[in-house]
Amino acid sequence: MKGRRTDLSGAECAAARALAVIGDWWSLLIVRDALMGTERFSDFQKSIGLAKNILSSRLKKLVDDGVLELERDPVFENRHRYALTSKGESLGVVIAALWQWGEANCFEPGELSIRLVDGRDGQSFSKIRLRNTKGEPVESRGMRLRVKKKA
Amino acid sequence: MKGRRTDLSGAECAAARALAVIGDWWSLLIVRDALMGTERFSDFQKSIGLAKNILSSRLKKLVDDGVLELERDPVFENRHRYALTSKGESLGVVIAALWQWGEANCFEPGELSIRLVDGRDGQSFSKIRLRNTKGEPVESRGMRLRVKKKA
Repeated sequence: MKGRRTDLSGAECAAARALAVIGDWWSLLIVRDALMGTERFSDFQKSIGLAKNILSSRLKKLVDDGVLELERDPVFENRHRYALTSKGESLGVVIAALWQWGEANCFEPGELSIRLVDGRDGQSFSKIRLRNTKGEPVESRGMRLRVKKKA
Repeated sequence: MKGRRTDLSGAECAAARALAVIGDWWSLLIVRDALMGTERFSDFQKSIGLAKNILSSRLKKLVDDGVLELERDPVFENRHRYALTSKGESLGVVIAALWQWGEANCFEPGELSIRLVDGRDGQSFSKIRLRNTKGEPVESRGMRLRVKKKA
């Protein structure tokens, strides 16, 4: 966003509030890399190709928001590394859903050159679907917001 | 993003390329509203509270990217309305995953006042999970990128 940026952190909509934390390309790409094992500043920089000052501010925001936490680096004394919190790790399904959407909609046939796989067995993930409480796939066009009844 | 904005539309990573299309708070909130039935400029504006010129440019980008399409308004002649394409509709699972993450991580207990439900029966959706090809839930920390073998 250039120019005006509204603060969504107090929004009633949970998706809007989530975007206040990770609604920035770089933040999601940082979490993507962290999920894949990246821990050090220099490795994030190599992967994402972002100016140091911008990367630094994004990492700081993710730490402030509880998505990443700082740990002492076991190899290099006086340095730290970035570890995903469980809050950060649970963004994995958002990133995978985004990946699958991009894969299906943003590439020409034959153009896609990398795959998202489960590192444990090298297999793809199954298509992430919206499901009702019985576990049956449902169309997302029917989603609605409802005011919660006070307890 | 203030200042520099890198073009991710040719990125190899499908998640990055997806973000080039919808990696903007407003675009995702517009798609959220469209999934819930919003079709007219004035209704998007009421819901999102965005300046007309910014809303207009975001809607145009979503049309250019094939997420929304313009239709003639059946009520008001000479006007149009915005309809989701199937590409746009398939973003629903991304938005729902984002909603669920926000709901679980961005609210104090008792603070959340609206729920995301299936308008057909008023029920919540089941928790969106990352699953392997057998349909078993797996942790997202193990996801990796693999270079695709040439066919």
